Formats: sequence, C-alpha cells, structure tokens
Amino acid sequence: MRAYISELSKHIGETVTLEGWLVKKRSSGKIGFLQIRDGSGDVQGVASRADLDEVSWQAIEELTQESTLRVSGVVQEDKRAPSGVEVHLGKIEILAISPEFPISPKEHGVSFLMEKRHLWLRSSRQRAALRVRSEVSQGIRDFFYERGFTLIDSPILTPAACEGTSTLFETDYFGEQAYLSQSGQLYLEPAAAALGKVYCFGPTFRAEKSKTRRHLMEFWMVEPEVAFLEFGGLCELAEEFVCALVARVLDRCSAELATLERDRSVLESITAPFPRITYSDAIDALKADGLDVSWGDDLGAEEETALASRFGKPVLLTHFPAAIKAFYMEPDPDNPDQVLGVDVLAPEGYGEIIGGSQRIHDHDLLLERIRAHDLPLEAFDWYLDVRKFGTFPHSGFGMGLERFVAWVTGLKHLRETIPYPRMLNKIYP
Amino acid sequence: MRAYISELSKHIGETVTLEGWLVKKRSSGKIGFLQIRDGSGDVQGVASRADLDEVSWQAIEELTQESTLRVSGVVQEDKRAPSGVEVHLGKIEILAISPEFPISPKEHGVSFLMEKRHLWLRSSRQRAALRVRSEVSQGIRDFFYERGFTLIDSPILTPAACEGTSTLFETDYFGEQAYLSQSGQLYLEPAAAALGKVYCFGPTFRAEKSKTRRHLMEFWMVEPEVAFLEFGGLCELAEEFVCALVARVLDRCSAELATLERDRSVLESITAPFPRITYSDAIDALKADGLDVSWGDDLGAEEETALASRFGKPVLLTHFPAAIKAFYMEPDPDNPDQVLGVDVLAPEGYGEIIGGSQRIHDHDLLLERIRAHDLPLEAFDWYLDVRKFGTFPHSGFGMGLERFVAWVTGLKHLRETIPYPRMLNKIYP
Repeated sequence: MRAYISELSKHIGETVTLEGWLVKKRSSGKIGFLQIRDGSGDVQGVASRADLDEVSWQAIEELTQESTLRVSGVVQEDKRAPSGVEVHLGKIEILAISPEFPISPKEHGVSFLMEKRHLWLRSSRQRAALRVRSEVSQGIRDFFYERGFTLIDSPILTPAACEGTSTLFETDYFGEQAYLSQSGQLYLEPAAAALGKVYCFGPTFRAEKSKTRRHLMEFWMVEPEVAFLEFGGLCELAEEFVCALVARVLDRCSAELATLERDRSVLESITAPFPRITYSDAIDALKADGLDVSWGDDLGAEEETALASRFGKPVLLTHFPAAIKAFYMEPDPDNPDQVLGVDVLAPEGYGEIIGGSQRIHDHDLLLERIRAHDLPLEAFDWYLDVRKFGTFPHSGFGMGLERFVAWVTGLKHLRETIPYPRMLNKIYP
Repeated sequence: MRAYISELSKHIGETVTLEGWLVKKRSSGKIGFLQIRDGSGDVQGVASRADLDEVSWQAIEELTQESTLRVSGVVQEDKRAPSGVEVHLGKIEILAISPEFPISPKEHGVSFLMEKRHLWLRSSRQRAALRVRSEVSQGIRDFFYERGFTLIDSPILTPAACEGTSTLFETDYFGEQAYLSQSGQLYLEPAAAALGKVYCFGPTFRAEKSKTRRHLMEFWMVEPEVAFLEFGGLCELAEEFVCALVARVLDRCSAELATLERDRSVLESITAPFPRITYSDAIDALKADGLDVSWGDDLGAEEETALASRFGKPVLLTHFPAAIKAFYMEPDPDNPDQVLGVDVLAPEGYGEIIGGSQRIHDHDLLLERIRAHDLPLEAFDWYLDVRKFGTFPHSGFGMGLERFVAWVTGLKHLRETIPYPRMLNKIYP
C-alpha cells in the first residue's frame, strides 16, 4: 500500500510503499539505515542484508543525498524515533540518482543559501519554518471565517499614489501610472459598509532601500476591518487574534517548534489580557530607563524592544500623537492631539507585529485631515464617499505575516519566513 | 443586547440592539417597516406608532436609503421572512443621514456602476456574489489543508520574463527589470521536492489588451503541485476539487444562490466522475457538429462551449498536441506528439476553469523543450535543478477563482466576482 510518512503510525505491522528523497544513510556490512523524506515527514528505513535482494542491497551503496527512491517495508513502532516508527525494508528501488547536492549538513554562508533558495527549502529548518507559516496562514483564515468575516481581496494594482511614491513599486497600466498596493485598508472600508466584518490577506509591497532583518520588499499582510467596532473592541480583537494564533501553533506545530529549537514556555505564557500602555506613559518609562526620547518622537526598533522587554508578553501601545500617525485615525475625544491607534509589540525584540486604529468617520474632519496632510484630494474622492453615504464608526488593523511567524518560531531574520524572499537587490530565484 | 442580524433566530423573544444601514422603508399612519442591513444579513423592523417615543417615530420619517441607524426591539419569528424573523422595534436612533444614494433600486448602466464600485458593493446581488467568492476561497484553503498540503506563497515580483513580455506588467526593482507573476508553478515545483504536497493561492496578472467578459488583468489563481503524482491522479484530484467546492457552495450559500437566482439543480448534478474526452476525439466530435476545426488548433471559447454543452457537466479534455501547450508538459508515452495535460471545461458556456498537467521530470528532455521553444536558458537554471537533484514525477493544475465563482453563481461577467475588478483601461477606484 502506498503511504505517506506522516500516516505511518496508523499502519504498524503493515507493509507499505514510500516514495521520497534520501536525506542521509549509514551502513555496516550487514545492516543499513536510510533516512527518507517524502514531504509529509522523515522516517528511518532499516535494511538488513539478509532480508533484501541483491539489487536492493546494492542500491544502498549507490544512493546519494537527495536521490529519489521507492521502498517497501513493514512499519514497526519505535518509541525513540521522532516519528514514533521505523520501516523494516524489504525492497529498495532507485528512482533517480542525485549528483552532489550543493547544500550539505556542513555550514554555508547565507548569501550562498539564498542563491540556492530553491534547494535550501529542503533543509529541515526551512521546512519547519514554512510549515509554521502555512499553519499560521490557515489559522488566520479560520479565525476570521469562524467569526463571520467576509474575505474581500483588495486590489494589488492601484491608481493614485495616496501618500507619496517614494516607497512604491510603479508599473504602466495601459498608459496610466499604477502602483503596487501597500495596504488594502482603503478598499476594505467601503466593503465594511456592505458586509460588516471584512478582511483581506494578500501580498503587499514596499520599495524601501533598507537592508535590515525586519524588512522584505514583498510580504503578506492580513487586515480586518469591522463596521461599528470602536477602539476598545479593536484592542480586544487584536489580543484575541494573537492569542488564537499562538495557541494554534503550540497545538499543531510541536515538531516544527522542536526542529527550530523554539522555547515553548515563552509562547505558552502568551495569554490575554496583554499589558497596555499609552504612548505618553511609554515615553516616561523609556526616559526613566535612560533612553533619549521625547514626546512626539516616532518610536524605533530600539525603543520598541526596550518597551516590550519590560513585560515579556505582547504589549498594546496606544494613544499616539496624531502627528506621527496616518491621517485617517480617529482623535481621542479626551485628548484631541492624540489618536485612537494601537500597536501590538511582540516581546524578545521582534517589535511591532500589529498596527491599527479606529478610523475617522466624520466626513468633514476626514476632509480636513486629508488637506492638513497635503494629500491629493481627488485620490480620496471615493474613500470620502464612505463617510458621506451613511457613515459609521469602524476600526481595523494590519498584521504582517512574516513578522508574526519570525516571532513565533524565534527566527531572527524575516527572509526565512517566506518561501522566496524579495530583498534589496535580491529577486532571484 | 447587541446582536448581528445573522444570529437573530437564536434570540427569539429577546430584546436586541442592531446597528446598520436602512435599505428601504415604507410606512402608513400608524405602522412603519424598515429593512435594515448590518452586513451579516437583512431583517425587517416593524415600528408601531403606539410602541415608540416621538423621536423614534420621527426618525422613520427622516431616514433615507443608506442612512445608518441603531434600533432596539424584540425578535419575533416570522416564517414568511427570508431571515425567518422580524424585529418589533421599541427604539430607533439615527446615527447618520445619507444624502441621496447614487444607486437606487432602478436600473443603472454598468459603466456607471463600475465607477461607483465602492458603493455598488452594498447591493444585494453584489454582496451575494462576494460572499460566494469568500466561501469558495475558504473552501479552497480547507480542501488543501485537510489533505496535508503546505501553503507556499509564490512571489509576485519575479525576475526574468520566462515566456515573453507581451502580457506582463513590468516594474523597476532597484535598477533591474521585474515582472508581476502570471503563475506560481515554477516556484512550487522546488517546494514540492521539500514538502511533497504544496499549493499557492494569490493574485496573478495578465496585461492582455482584451475586453471580454472572461478576462481580468488581476485575478486570483490557486495552484496545487504534488510530488510523485502522475497524470491519472491529477485528473482525479481536479475532479474531487471541483466537486468539493460545488458541494460547499450548495451547502453554505443557499441564500446567496437564491439572491442571484442561480438554478441549484444544475449545480446539484455536478458529481464525479466527470466525462473525459481526448483532444483528438474532441476535434472529431466538433467536426461532426459542423465546426471548422482541425487537429492542432488551439480551441477557443466557441469550441469549448460547444464541447462542454454536449455533457451538461464539467468535462476533462486531455492529451493535447504538444505544440499548442506549455514546454513543461510530460509527453504521452503512447503518443509522444501529445502531452499529459488536462483542461476542465465548465458547462453553460463558462469554458476552461482548470488547466493542468504532469510535468516533464527528465532533465535532458526538459532542457531540449526549453531550447525548442526558444526560451532563455539562463532563466530556467534553477528550475532545471529540480530535475537534477533527485528528480521525481509530479503534476499540478491552476484554477482561476473568478471563473469558478462566475460559473457557480451563474454570473455572466467576471467583473462581478471580484471586489475591485481591474480591466482594460479600468483601474478605479
């Protein structure tokens, strides 16, 4: 019976056929061990010379790392094995011999590995990271689906450059300038008026000439937008969302977290409620810690890390000065120079993973802010319509998938959290 | 208690508060009817003058289409109502009065509606179509998740133009030419060597100067790719996939199909197995029907429609001439001038919804095909590596989300199956 390695524990005592790649092998005169990968998992095949025909035994000799093979054998329980089983081989068939694989278990430089990204994907750590990414992606979709959100895919190709073109990728759209989207928010708000609770989750683009471990030119962002949701509810939604995703990874990615040597206990402590701190209190706390910051400064990576490390949990940073945030954020009624915005800062130096706000829903106030920010009014004509025809309080946030995955897996660099990273001067393969 | 309209049937006899938009109203001297939408559904509020304070009663007079309101009332069962309930209002509060809404229940031209797409989304048919789209998207993710596939988000920004630039959107990537992706397949194949069963599902781009109801410049495509899957298994996967999605829509989108006046019985007949016909037999059948086609022709919309209408079910069209298909398709061992490709043609004139194939996994044969197709070899260096280091038979397909949604909803034009369509000379809003 043809089987996948991930299912073998259901077939103990049965004879199965597996197809996959040779990860590594060792053999003595009478017994051989083959570590086989089929994409669903890894398993050890045990080959005893006495049980094998000559062609099969010879195959062990010939097989190289990453060669493809088909084997048949009996599944046996093996409590010491990570998979819980091993396969006692009766037949080994070579499908294709691989020449020397460029990536051996020895150390390689990152620029070499990035050039060979299409092959590096086969490494156990890379597979683990991408499985976590896949699980988190599905977790995000399920979270919103189960809560009655409608998926609204926002467009990638957008017309006017709403907030300056310096970090936008540009393309010709049948004679017009078009730009690759940096956020679906403006497109979600009209959809929230139609469907109440909506979200988008797709690639976004930022042509930023920065070469840090926290930036990618192309990354995936999830953005919910909820009609009649105000600031308090938004903070709760963000908190619930982070907790649900962390819990899901703990529940379903144990093997991957182990491969990545991620400390589970750090993640197990991530439960609601998260600590909350206003921007003003944060500035005071950072000053008390000796950092050189003043009220009105935009907090950078260093300040975010310092702040988050005070708590050991994600922190909700709220009530920012209006001047350092986007034009559409609702003013705090108690302090009109501040806005009802929230950033969620991850601990362990991962910084901002979520940014959101209640949106201005008063037509005239929004108009005033567009003008005050010197934005081209004609580009916001349709966006203003949301406030004209039956306006409503609403809120939303955005979360970068790669930043979340980096934090949850403990990976230091975003480039390992996405299959084919796009970085400064790096668009291959 | 604050409630959503979709949940009201669980609250019969209780007093709830709803927030939403006025769809329409009618009133006589002593009783008023308000149709309210909150994004989760529509419900009728019944207002009796005797039960309301003066401000609430006056509000009925003042409310216009698309004004926002907050109402409180008692939920009562009403078997005649589509939602199964109505709300006997005790209080009506105006949140914001809307000026005359541009889209009234009367007929509007499509170009006007497209200009007002951000408002048109509120119409019942548009909401229904986008809910089906959202359900199908989740259905696609669940289908692959449940079968152990790993999501591999393929990049949008890609370097070399593998197959000519005439239909590609182009952008500057820090001094290099880059192009918006038309398919993730080439990126999935190396990932299949790492993770076995993989898929991508994201936006794809085609700068085609065509203005038909079957084309969008930006659309979403799902593409599975499976290691060690051969042609027969591929056809079964495609069949199972289509059936699962149709069944899910029938199961979970009854109200939406009713709104769109879709004939359910057509969808209920979509069960496996689908009829299969080879390209050669199809040509003979079309000739017999009097169409002017010859072996070797690429079938167009007219031929696809004629072919699919013979069956009333999706048809698997297989074994195409190699010359009219992509370079990477595996030759049929019995007829090397034909390839192991499959198109799934939807009935009712919707044409191709799926295209797939077994991929060439022999390194030298693939190299020969790349040369024969005059493709730039250096662009396929890394792609050839998949065949070099442990090659394996594998197969995959692509399905355009919008074409599937158009077929399942019975919508004639793709533009209504995506929130913000991008068409020839049309990139607003």
